[in-house]
This record gives sequence, structure tokens and C-alpha cells, in this order.
Amino acid sequence: MAPPAKTSKRHAAKTTKKAPTVKKTRPNVGGRPRDAKMVYYFGKTKAEATSDMKQLVGGKGANLSEMTSIGLPVPPGFTITTETCAKYYEGGKRLPHGLMNEVHQNMSLVAKEMGREFGSKDNPLLVSVRSGAAVSMPGMMDTILNLGLNDEAVEGLANVTGNRRFAYDAYRRLINMFGDVVMGVGHEVFEKAFDKIKIKYEAKTDNDVPEHGIVELAEAYKTVYRKAVGDEFPQNPSKQLELAIEAVFKSWNADRAISYRRLSGITGLTGTAVNIQAMVYGNMGDDSGTGVAFTRNPSTGENKFYGEFLINAQGEDVVAGIRTPQPVEEMPKWNAKVHDQLLKIKGTLEAHYTEMQDIEFTIERNKLFMLQTRTGKRTGAAAVRIACDMVREKLISEEDALLRIPAADLIQLLLPSFDEKSKPKNSVLTRGLPASPGAAVGKPAFTAEEAVERSHNEAVILVRKETSPEDVDGMHSAVGILTSTGGMTSHAAVVARGWGKCCVAGAGEVHIDAKKGTFTVGGKTFKRTDTISIDGSTGEVMSGAIPTVEPKLSGDFAKIMRWADKYRTLLVRTNADTPEDSRRAREFGAQGIGLCRTEHMFFEGERILAMREMILAETKEAREAALDKLLPFQRDDFIGIFTAMKGLPVTIRLLDPPLHEFLPHEPATIKEVAKVLGVPAKKVEQRVAQLHELNPMLGHRGCRLAVTYPEILVMQVRAIVEAMINCQHNKIKAMPEIMIPLVGVAKELGMLRKLVEQTIHDVRAENDIKSALNIKIGTMIEVPRAAITADQVAEHADFFSFGTNDLTQMTFGYSRDDSATFLPEYVGQEILPADPFQQLDEGGVGELVKMAIEKGRDANDLLKIGVCGEHGGDPSSVHFCHAAGLDYVSCSPFRVPIARLAAAQAALMHDR
Amino acid sequence: MAPPAKTSKRHAAKTTKKAPTVKKTRPNVGGRPRDAKMVYYFGKTKAEATSDMKQLVGGKGANLSEMTSIGLPVPPGFTITTETCAKYYEGGKRLPHGLMNEVHQNMSLVAKEMGREFGSKDNPLLVSVRSGAAVSMPGMMDTILNLGLNDEAVEGLANVTGNRRFAYDAYRRLINMFGDVVMGVGHEVFEKAFDKIKIKYEAKTDNDVPEHGIVELAEAYKTVYRKAVGDEFPQNPSKQLELAIEAVFKSWNADRAISYRRLSGITGLTGTAVNIQAMVYGNMGDDSGTGVAFTRNPSTGENKFYGEFLINAQGEDVVAGIRTPQPVEEMPKWNAKVHDQLLKIKGTLEAHYTEMQDIEFTIERNKLFMLQTRTGKRTGAAAVRIACDMVREKLISEEDALLRIPAADLIQLLLPSFDEKSKPKNSVLTRGLPASPGAAVGKPAFTAEEAVERSHNEAVILVRKETSPEDVDGMHSAVGILTSTGGMTSHAAVVARGWGKCCVAGAGEVHIDAKKGTFTVGGKTFKRTDTISIDGSTGEVMSGAIPTVEPKLSGDFAKIMRWADKYRTLLVRTNADTPEDSRRAREFGAQGIGLCRTEHMFFEGERILAMREMILAETKEAREAALDKLLPFQRDDFIGIFTAMKGLPVTIRLLDPPLHEFLPHEPATIKEVAKVLGVPAKKVEQRVAQLHELNPMLGHRGCRLAVTYPEILVMQVRAIVEAMINCQHNKIKAMPEIMIPLVGVAKELGMLRKLVEQTIHDVRAENDIKSALNIKIGTMIEVPRAAITADQVAEHADFFSFGTNDLTQMTFGYSRDDSATFLPEYVGQEILPADPFQQLDEGGVGELVKMAIEKGRDANDLLKIGVCGEHGGDPSSVHFCHAAGLDYVSCSPFRVPIARLAAAQAALMHDR
Repeated sequence: MAPPAKTSKRHAAKTTKKAPTVKKTRPNVGGRPRDAKMVYYFGKTKAEATSDMKQLVGGKGANLSEMTSIGLPVPPGFTITTETCAKYYEGGKRLPHGLMNEVHQNMSLVAKEMGREFGSKDNPLLVSVRSGAAVSMPGMMDTILNLGLNDEAVEGLANVTGNRRFAYDAYRRLINMFGDVVMGVGHEVFEKAFDKIKIKYEAKTDNDVPEHGIVELAEAYKTVYRKAVGDEFPQNPSKQLELAIEAVFKSWNADRAISYRRLSGITGLTGTAVNIQAMVYGNMGDDSGTGVAFTRNPSTGENKFYGEFLINAQGEDVVAGIRTPQPVEEMPKWNAKVHDQLLKIKGTLEAHYTEMQDIEFTIERNKLFMLQTRTGKRTGAAAVRIACDMVREKLISEEDALLRIPAADLIQLLLPSFDEKSKPKNSVLTRGLPASPGAAVGKPAFTAEEAVERSHNEAVILVRKETSPEDVDGMHSAVGILTSTGGMTSHAAVVARGWGKCCVAGAGEVHIDAKKGTFTVGGKTFKRTDTISIDGSTGEVMSGAIPTVEPKLSGDFAKIMRWADKYRTLLVRTNADTPEDSRRAREFGAQGIGLCRTEHMFFEGERILAMREMILAETKEAREAALDKLLPFQRDDFIGIFTAMKGLPVTIRLLDPPLHEFLPHEPATIKEVAKVLGVPAKKVEQRVAQLHELNPMLGHRGCRLAVTYPEILVMQVRAIVEAMINCQHNKIKAMPEIMIPLVGVAKELGMLRKLVEQTIHDVRAENDIKSALNIKIGTMIEVPRAAITADQVAEHADFFSFGTNDLTQMTFGYSRDDSATFLPEYVGQEILPADPFQQLDEGGVGELVKMAIEKGRDANDLLKIGVCGEHGGDPSSVHFCHAAGLDYVSCSPFRVPIARLAAAQAALMHDR
Repeated sequence: MAPPAKTSKRHAAKTTKKAPTVKKTRPNVGGRPRDAKMVYYFGKTKAEATSDMKQLVGGKGANLSEMTSIGLPVPPGFTITTETCAKYYEGGKRLPHGLMNEVHQNMSLVAKEMGREFGSKDNPLLVSVRSGAAVSMPGMMDTILNLGLNDEAVEGLANVTGNRRFAYDAYRRLINMFGDVVMGVGHEVFEKAFDKIKIKYEAKTDNDVPEHGIVELAEAYKTVYRKAVGDEFPQNPSKQLELAIEAVFKSWNADRAISYRRLSGITGLTGTAVNIQAMVYGNMGDDSGTGVAFTRNPSTGENKFYGEFLINAQGEDVVAGIRTPQPVEEMPKWNAKVHDQLLKIKGTLEAHYTEMQDIEFTIERNKLFMLQTRTGKRTGAAAVRIACDMVREKLISEEDALLRIPAADLIQLLLPSFDEKSKPKNSVLTRGLPASPGAAVGKPAFTAEEAVERSHNEAVILVRKETSPEDVDGMHSAVGILTSTGGMTSHAAVVARGWGKCCVAGAGEVHIDAKKGTFTVGGKTFKRTDTISIDGSTGEVMSGAIPTVEPKLSGDFAKIMRWADKYRTLLVRTNADTPEDSRRAREFGAQGIGLCRTEHMFFEGERILAMREMILAETKEAREAALDKLLPFQRDDFIGIFTAMKGLPVTIRLLDPPLHEFLPHEPATIKEVAKVLGVPAKKVEQRVAQLHELNPMLGHRGCRLAVTYPEILVMQVRAIVEAMINCQHNKIKAMPEIMIPLVGVAKELGMLRKLVEQTIHDVRAENDIKSALNIKIGTMIEVPRAAITADQVAEHADFFSFGTNDLTQMTFGYSRDDSATFLPEYVGQEILPADPFQQLDEGGVGELVKMAIEKGRDANDLLKIGVCGEHGGDPSSVHFCHAAGLDYVSCSPFRVPIARLAAAQAALMHDR
């Protein structure tokens, strides 16, 4: 996708990032020498980075620096650039020469600002080391806290804070995290040691363990470390720092990070930045705490400060979902001053960024520190509401509002929700937190692996105590996620919202026995075979499959759509084959049908029989007799669709798939069909075998059928024209457009067009219609050769419609049915930026599209051009279509609103 | 194909017509108004057409006029243009307005020159009406003789010739032909009537029937006509003429004509001309006769007048093969003067046309008339010899010689011939005429339909008394043709020579019982299940399958190749996978291997086992273990090929087909394989099912395999490099080029190139090779996307090789395996000019090729570019490759000489 060219406000581009897409060119990086500055400082002395330098210093680093600049309380620190990470990999996983020098210079600055000294046994400077790529990847990258502690410094920390328990707790956390993240020692071995201590001191929670227990624990952790690593925990703080930086770099290519990038479609990044920042402590006692919050509700969009905090805890405790935190509304009871301060910061941040922010903060002994701000992930519904609210609040313009709603996220507003009216009594088992909206119905799966495996055959809901980054594959496979612990900002909640997947979090009454494969709630036990329903908008967990209802376009959503229609120039049509779909698409704003497939119409009841009779016929006459039976069905189908579309254009594609798709393939069905048709089973078998193709995708289909069996085309055209005339008699306007598929040679279209025109003429004559019927005749451009020879094809066409599905298959030589064996690897290894069947391949398929448009319009300047592949509902592809100068896109009914918004965004970004 | 641009001599273009290709633009027709002159006269008064006006007046008409101009004795007449035929069809099968007026004006001129009157009862003018398209189609179009006779005129003819028997014979022939050709009355009903008369008069042959029998016969024919048509035979000569002209027009679209054009690949013609010419008679008695001849031997090329004649017969009798004629050597005994005259005319014609001519003549009462001349069809061997002889005779230049040999016909010189040494004793059953060279082995088929049907499963030889235009499909399907009657110029002989198909004609000792499905020769009876061999160069018919030997490039053939090499700029490589093929291709002049497929190497014995083990492996390690077993085999294969190629470049394509092609598919074989590999059959089954693809053509194959299983690539590259090093140790120069197939995305090639380079580096290091190894790394361009993004692909490639087979499949969306269901119809209906898998589609695939060349060279000016699809051996495609600026073409060993000649022709035609 082309980068946003011009936007009316400074931050518009940033906030319309369409989550996964990242610019390849780094705006502030281009031309930088490879041995340039590797470290950027932020603190009172200076704040070197700004928020538009995310590509270089990562999102977290950029915003820490930016917050520092606008005067918010941020502990000082510095950022190692993403380029340094790239250099690390280029150099065969070695820290670039000179890096540690720069690091130490910046450490000195931090030490000076903090009045502490790194590695000092008196007043030691402790730091956190965190990853931070240009695109936020929640929980994906590793973090180390309290770095700088050793056997001596811990005593210094105890002295200077006057809190020995705290100092040793910090030390044991460092050993644990360092062991886990840097040395790969399993977290569980540390947990085991902790459990022993807790038993010894009869402590229920971590906080119940007394000071000497914690001191003992630190010693126990060192033993665990020594046993697992085969070496002592490093006592040299500089060595700790160096190893930690390297561990962050390494985590960039950890399986789970690669997996997250693949699932989220994130490509084009060079690596992660590393943020090193002076530690502040939320776990210094009951006057300390930590929290995460959104400046508005990320689930509904309501303009209300929204978050959670934990008293006497470090930040990781909130995100990990281990302890269930309190909502920020409760904070005034604990510390009203800090709460006021946070509300003020909310205002400052929103005014500065003109966007809803997701923040992390820590209160150290009643003093507030900001540790992170970033644009907050939100649901589609929240995106719509926030955008509309901010226009009302005069924070942003209408154009900005349109630009910052990820068009694809609208799908969430179009998903069905549970029907309150038909919800059975007593079906609600319990209520958790409404972590991510949606209505999911499925059977419970208790591990991520199980969810992946079973999801191929059935809808599963992943039921877990909590989720962790290792679970992302399973979370992605499930239709919904249910956790028994964790809050609205837990891993499960954040990831689910990011994907627009239904999630109920922290449903504490749900007791899970993962080993047995059951969960119990309110005395009822549910197995893998039981169906449950979860409502991510209410937090309800229900037994059975609750019926759903369709969404409506209303309120803010309708407003966004009206604004979109004001700015877009691209028309949006729909792909619909039934009156029902046609009606729904019109409600969603479709301006016509761009693709009405006729083959689906041949599968029901008597029709499939007549169809099979036609295929089995051995003479043209017998074929025509069978087609005569199909004619009334087809005609009625078209009458239904024309009526539903109320005069909007309806592009009807003539029969496309190979004939064998209509024949039975199982011996039993073959016998049955033979019996009904009164022919020997042998004959049906022979015909099935005869029609078998090695590569049906490249076989006898599309207009090739019309060339060899023109009578099929004649029947279909007759049905269309008769339906049109029938509608006219009933004062219903019908505007059919006849589309001939799979044309590769101009003469094919020329010949078939003549036949269509002749048939129209014949039906007109039979019905004594004097006036001309306005029926456009065109073709799909889906064979590369048609694009290459579009000038010749255009001479016979009133319109082109790009069938980008098949065009992608043939341009790449990928069979959509078979490419799953290698395409994920292609995307994972970044050979391709995205699955070309989801996102139009601009470099290849797009070139053909542009070539065809140019040649086609040169030859025929009245040519109307659209797209009717599934790409018509993909926002980045819609941008391409707009830029390429198409007249319309056509997509499935539920994607019509997405296409409308994407078309507006394209117009705003490309044409201003 | 571009029209011949400049040639050094006037007739060069004409004679290098590459049999089937016809220019679409009509050089002398362009810009003619549609109501222009429809008739061209030839005679003493004027000769309006010249030999370069074939598109307009057809070949026959142009040459009749040309012969008239150079003073040869041609009966006067005129030609109705091919455009008039087109107008006839455009006007809904109606003779164009004004045509008959023009015809009658010209008839008057003929009448005046002949001193006779059309329709006169005293001295009637009789005419022949013949078809004549721009390209000769032997026996395809209908002819009517003696037109103008009726019940009165026949008496006039009897009087003026003083030969009543002759007059009535002419009349009965007219009724027969008119009934057959114009009215569709079956020839056999007339034959039956004739048989009755013959029995009545105890006549053995037609000539034995006495005069009154013939008069009686004419009456009987009229009755036959009346019964069949339901109307009297038309007595009005003008009406006869009009109906006859229309019948010729209609015959243009008769099934057999369409079929012949399709089989011969003739396209781009608008219709047939009609030639109307004063009759002369070869059946006026024993001083009359008729004959056909070639100015040189069309089978061997020997410069000797070569033909046949029949005394007291009409022309059709010779061609139809009903009576076996005498060779022209016998003519001096009958009429030395006419024989001398013919020899003189041979000289005149060859000097005028500088080409071997195929003539028809008639002697009416000792007076010679020329009825036809045209460039004679000849075998490939004859074409080579005639071209070389004519250079020696200083009739033409070396360049002309090259230009006039249809390159594709060289295949005939490269076909195996029977091995005289290993021919079993007594295997020769009889000897017929050596009508068309070649060695055919097969089982007899007795009807055309049978030949078509059985040819799908076995090699058949069509054994017929004679062949007729209705038999062309069967003749085409058969590997050879054997007839028991007819001469060297019979239908079977002429058609077979045109196609380069083996034919033995007039083997009179062969007695055929088509009903029984047997033939008897020398007392032995042969059934459909018996194998016979026929030698078209000697005329021998043999029992059993005679062994064959390979051809040599020697004599005139070698001379032509030397000349070709002098003029061509395109290099010619070969597609070869074995040392044997490589050696043969070098003998045929290949300048390297352009495509060495490696997959064929995995099918023999132990290899396929190791291959299957590799495919069944579940881990990379197990896969590598299996690959280690394959390595020595591959290495030895390459050593063999490098040794055979003696330092010429060898382009090796890495594994291309999908893996399932190597797995067993039958339950029994699956069991066997499972047993040998020591795995459960279930596992093999599962893997087979897992690897099954819906569209394998577009599946997991080519470099996609190397991306997902890089270890396969590593093994293959290792084998190549180790083989190269091994050869170097043995002082054998090896020049491998590594070709990565099916690239569609530049990054694929970039990534795999690195892996290839790494492997080369590793093997060099292991073998302690200090100097760099010169190994080019390139790719096939066979996916449309690779052509579209060729600039990006070229950055990673030392060479491109167009895989035009797959490129054609994907550009058209045609599966080569499945397209037989519609492609013949596409060619038949002229939607496509030719099967694009045989002849490169310039408009679509060619555009992609040109785009890729331009983009590729722009990005990388050292890029070497070739073609290695089967098009590399197709002359018209070679012309395209030359014009497109390719460096080389690569084709199968046997097509190498064809490509060398075609490349020279391309250079001569395009660059001068």
C-alpha cells in the first residue's frame, strides 16, 4: 500500500495505521550512515527522540521521549535503535562495535539525573530493560527489571530504601527474570522454590512472606540459577546489562514473536529497539502501586478513564493476569491525589496525541511515574465511537475520524450478536469481564494445541486460567476465549481485542481442570463435547448454543458511513447470489451487484437433477431439453434478485465452474442419480470419469463451456431477459449486466457477445418488445492473457470486472486449494508481504490490473471497470483499486461497509 | 509471425511459406473497395492476374494466368476471387449482386477465343469449374467438369467431335459430378447404375462399354438424378454454372475442408476462388490422355521429370487413384512429341518460378494443354536436395536455398529408418510405390474411423484400396498408410507427403477385405492384431516389427546445416537429461544443454526408493539421510552429462514436479513400498493423500519445494559441484549452470541463490578448491508474475530461460492435460490461430516474453536469455525468439537441426 500521502492533521497518518501494515521506508532513517548514533536519550537533560521516530527507536522509546518532552513524569533512560538490532543479526548475532560504549555514556547521564550509581553498593542505580518495536506486540518481547542488583547492591538498596524485604524481593525478581529471559531457565523451577518458601511460612500470597523469607528466597533462586545454568548468577552489573540487551535482540526472532507477526500480518520491520530506563517501584509498600489504563473505554469507546491498578506490585503483575487488579474508579479511595493527577495526564495526552492512549504507570511512595503511552488498541465499535466523539469534542476533523478507523475492524460491528429474546432461561452460568465484544458459540478446548487441532473440524472456545504469549496460535484458532483470572488488560483481553475476537476474561467462578478436560461452574460440569456460548459484550458465559441476530447500521456507525460516502469516489457493489443476500447488501449500502454467480442456483432439489441430465445428455437436442427444465428456475431466481435490488445494476456471471462439479462422485450417489435419470449407472460413471480433470482450475470451464455448449449460454441469457421483461411488466426496474467469465482471447468474447445479442434479440421479438433493452455485456478479467490483450478484449466489452481471485491464482501459479502447504511459510519468511489471496499483490497482479485498465480504456473509453474478487472487501486492496482508477469494487455483503470506509480513506489519502 | 521482410530474390518469400502459415494482410488486396472486380480473366486476350495474387485469386487461378502470360498452352478461362466467396458467406450464403453479370461477360470472351458458344447445340462451349484457395488443399475442394452440356448440346458435341461415345461419356460424367457435388447425391448410386450397364455389356472396364451403352448410361444417370433430387437435371447451362459456383463456395466450409485446414494448421484464409476454364479432353480417344507430374522427384528430390499419365482419361482419373497410371518415362513410346514438349515446359517453369513445380496436363488429340502448375509438395529430404541442387544449378542463392526448406520438414530426415542389416529374411511380403518416405511399424486398420479410434492405444497402419478426402482424420492418426491401388500422385501419396507421413501406394498384390478386417498378400493373411512394417522409401511391405536405425547428418543435409550456421545469430541448445541424449544432440549441432531436467533421474531402481524414503521422512534429519543416498546417483548422472557435452554449457534445472508424482498410488504398490521402507502402509497412504493436490500444476512444486525443503536443493547443488570437480580432476571441462524453476517472486530467487552459493562455497572448501568455480545461477521464467516483475528477478539471475510450456498454461489458464476437451474446437473455430502449446502465442505469451526481456535486460545487462519450452523447436516460435532478441533456444535433440535452420531463416528474413 502506498504510504499516506497527505493528511490534514499531524497525527492522522499514525493513527490510521491499519494495524498490521508498516511502511517499508523509514521516514527518519533514510540515508543514515550505518555507523550512526545507536542510542537516544530521554530525561531532564535532553529528549532526543520524537513520536514520529518509531521506526528507529520503536513505539515505546519514541513515546517515552515524547512524554518527557511534554513534561510528564517519566523516569530517565535511553533507547537502543532498531537498526542496532538489525546490525546485531547482520553481524552474525554479535553486538555492534561501539554499542556498549554509547550505552555506558548514557548510563552515566541516567545515573547523574537519578543521583545514583550503576553497580554501586551504596545507592545503586537499577534499570529495566525492555523491548519495543515500531509496532506494538503485546507480551511478545522479553523484559528484565531491577537490573544492576547483585549481592552487594541489594544491601545498598535495602539501606537506601530502608526496606530490606523490598530490596531482596527486587533481587529475587531479577534472578528469576534474568534466568528465564536471558538464560532460558524455566519460570516454573523458580515458582517451585517460591512455593516451598510460602509453605514454610504458611503464606497465602507473595506479600504474606516475611522479610527473612524473601531473603531466603533470593538465596534459593541463586541456587536454582546455578543448578540450571551451571554458573553463578552474574554479579557484574555491566555484564548483566550486556547479556540483557542481547536477550532482547534475540527475542525478536523467538518462535512466538515470529508467530505473532505472522498471525497479525506484521512485516517490513528490521528489529526491536531496547529501552533502558531507571527503575521506579510500585512494590515499595502500600503507598506504592502500579497500573495500566486507557484514556477511554477500549471496548465500547465511552469517554471515561478506564483501567486497573494493583497496590504494592510491579507492572508485570497487572499484565500477566496473575492477580486480579482493582478498577481505577476505586483509586480515589486509596490515593485521590494520584487519581487526579492521572485524569489530568489523560487530558494532556489526548490533547497532545489527539488519540485514545493506552498507558502504564507506577506510583512509588505516592509519586506517580509514567512508564508508557501508546495509541490504544480498541474494538471496532470503540474505534467508531471514539472517532465520532472526538469530532464532537472538536479534537479532530471528520476526515481524521474517517482516517483513523481501521476499516477492517468494522467487521466486528457486523457480526451477529446474541438474541436477547430467544435466550433460554437459566442459560447464563456466570458473568466475567466483557473483555472483547462478540458472540461465540463452540465447544471448550483446554490447551492452545488442542484448540488448533480441533478447530479444523469444529468451533472451539479456548478455556484457560490465563493465557500467555505461547498460546497465540490456539487463541487465533478459537472462535472465542474464556479465562478464569486476569482483568480487562490481561494478555487474553488485549490480544483478543486486537484481533476483534470475542473474549470473556476473569470469570472467577469458572473452575478449570485442564488435565481432565472439564470445567465446572455453578455446580455444572462441561466437557469437550458440550457446547457453550460466551458474550464478549456482556461477559456472560452460557450453556448451549444461543441464537444470534443480525446487526444494524445505526448511530455512530451510520454517521461514519455517511461521512465515508461524502468523501469516497469509488462505488461499492456486492457479490450476492440470492434475493436475501441482495437485500442485506442494499441495507449495508451496496450500490448494485458486482458479481451474481449463477452456478449456486443449480444445486437445489430438482435443479441439480435437470443439471445432471443436461451434462449427461449426448446430443445438443437432449441438452436443450434438460436446459428447458432449468430455465424457469433461473428466471425466477433473477426476478427475485432484480426485485430485491430495486433498479440497481446486477452483474450476472454466466456459468463458470467445470461441469464435473455438478456430478455425483460417490458410487452410492451415482447409482441414485442414474436411477432417477433412468440411465445406467455405468453411463454416469463414465461421464464423471470423462469430465475428470487433472487441473480443473485450468480446465474446461468459464466461457470455454459456452464455446463448446452454446445452448447453456442461450438458456441463461434467455432467463435473464425474460426475468427483466417480467419485472418491467410489474413496474419493477431491472438492470441486468451480463458477464462472460474466463475470457483469454478477444475472439471468444466477440463470438459469445454475438450469441448473447442474438438471444436478447430473439426473446425481445418473442415478447413483442419494441424498445431496446439496456443490457450491458462485459467480461471478467481473470486470465493473465485477457489483461495483456485488454485492448482487443475491450472492443467487445461494455465493462471489465477483475476476478482477482483467479487472476491471482494464474499470475502466481498458485492454486488456492493447494497453496496452504507453502504460503504460510512464504509469508513467514517474508518472501511475500501477505497472503495474495487476502491482500491484492500490487507488484504482480496489480501490474496486470493497471495494464488492463490502461489498454482497455485506450481502446474503449466508455468501458466501466470494477473488481469482484474477494479483494474488493480488503481495505489495502480497495486503496489500490482507488489509485488504479477503477469505477467500483464489489465484495460480500458484510464487507460492504468496510469497502465504503476504505474507499473514503483512499480518497482522503490519495487525492488530497 | 511477422511477414517475410526482405528476401534477396523475388520468389523466396513464396517458397518459404512454412506450409501452414498464411499472411493475414493481403498484399494486393488491401484497400480494395468491397464492390471491386470479382472476376479475373486469362487467355490470349489478356491475363489479368499474376502469381503473387494468390490471396485474391487462389493459387490455381494465379498460376493459370501466369502460365498464360509466359506463353504456355493454357485453355482460356477466368477466376472468381476469394473475396467473392467471403462476400457470399457475409451475405448469408447468397451470390453477390453483379457476380453473374461479370461471369457472363467473361464467358463470352472464352467463347470467342474457343470459337464455341456456351449452351449452343451446335458447337457448345464446355467448361470446368474448380475451387482454388490461396493455399493448396489437395482433393479437398469440389470440381465439376463438362459443364454446359444438356440433352441438346451433347448431340452438338457428338457432331463437332465426331465422337458420340465421348460426348455421352462427358455428359454422364457431368450428371454424376453435378449430382454428387452440387446436389449431394451419393457417388455410389451412380456407380451402381454403371455396374448394371457394365454387366449388361459384359464390360470389364469403363472403356469396354460400347457407345450405345454409354448413351444408355447417361439416360440412367438422369433417372438416378431425378429420383435422388426430386427434380430433373437442369438443362439450362447458365443455371448449371450458377449452381456450380455456389457449390464450390459451399465446399469451403464442408466438414472435410475444415478438417484438413485444422489438421494442416491452415488459418487466415477468407475463402476459395472459383476457376472456370474451357474444357479440353484427355478422353477423346487413344490420341488423348491426361497426366500429373513434378518437375523433380518429390520424394527424393532427384532432378528428373517425374510423373504419371493415363491414356484416354480425364484428369480426375489420375488423382483419384482408381486406375493405376503409367510413369512419364513410358510416354515417348506413346507420343514422343508431347513428351519433348513437356520436358521443355519443365525447364521454362523452373526457370520462371525457380522452384520445383507440380503440374497437371491434358493431351487432346495430340495437343498438349497445361491445366495447373504450383509449387510441388515434397518430402523433407527432397526439399533439402532440391535446394542444394538448385544452388549448384545456379538457379537460386544459398540464402534462397535456406529460406525455401520448411524447417519443420527436416524432422523427416531425422526419423529412424529400417536397419537393412537386422531385417529378417523373407520378411518382405511385396513392394508398392515408395510414395512418402519413412519407416512405419503398426497393426492394420481398415477404415479411417477405426484408425482414429485405435490410434489412442496402439500404432496403426491405415490399409485401404485407395484413400479419399473423407479419410484425412484416419490418415493423420495412422503411423503409416498402405494402399493397394493408386500411383505416386494419388490422394494417399500427395497427402502423406504433405504431412511427411510414411506411405506405400499401389501395392497391387495386397488384397484387402475391409469387412473381414484382413488383408492377404502372397498367400499370407494379416489380421488387426498382426504387426507389419512399411518402408516409404523403398515401397517394401514387411511382416513383423523391423528394427530401425538412427539417421546421420550428412551430404546435402549437412551442407544446409553449415549454411544455416553461417547466417543464424540465435544459438541452439538442447533439452537432454541423459548422456545418450546429450551425445546425440551434440551430433545434431546443439551448442549446449538448455534444459537438463533432474526429476527423471529419480525414477530408476534404488533411486525411486530413496526418493520415496525422503518424501516419507518426518524430520529434516531423516530427509537428509535419504538425500544422502540419492547424492551419489545424481553426481554420477551429472558426470556422465558433462563428459558427453565436452565443455559446452549445461543448464541443470533443480527438482520441479510436486513430490506426489514420486509416490505410488495403487494399493498394491503402496504396500510394496511400505514393506521395502519398513513403514506401515497406512503411513504411505496418508502421505500420498496428504500430498494430493486439486491442481498440481499450480501446487507445491518448483522452487516452492526448495523453500520448504531446502535440503533437497542443497543435495542437488552438491551433486552438481562435486561432479564438476570430479570432471576437472579428469581434465574434462564442465560448465554447469544452475536453474531454479517456477520463480514468481524475486525474493524466492534471492533467497535460494544465496543457499546455492553457500553450498558451492561449502563443497569448494571441503574439496580444497582455491579458485572460484564458474557456475551461473539463473531461473526459469514460467510464471506470469516472474515475467511481470522480471526487473526484480533479474537482480538475482545470471540468466533467464523461458519455460514457455508452463508460461502458456498459466497465461491462458489452460491445463495442457485437460485442454483437449476444448482446444481443437478453439482452433477449428479460429478463436486461436494454432494450438498455443505447439506454436508460441505471440499476442499473449509473447507479450509477456518481450516484457520480461526488456525489464530483465534493463535491470541486468549481462543477463543471458533463452527459451527451453517445446516451442524452442517450432519454426514459427524460433522466428519470434530471434525477433525478440533471445540469445538461444533449446529444444529436444531431434529438433536441433530444425531450430538451426529456422534460426537462419529468421535471421535472413528479419535482419536483411
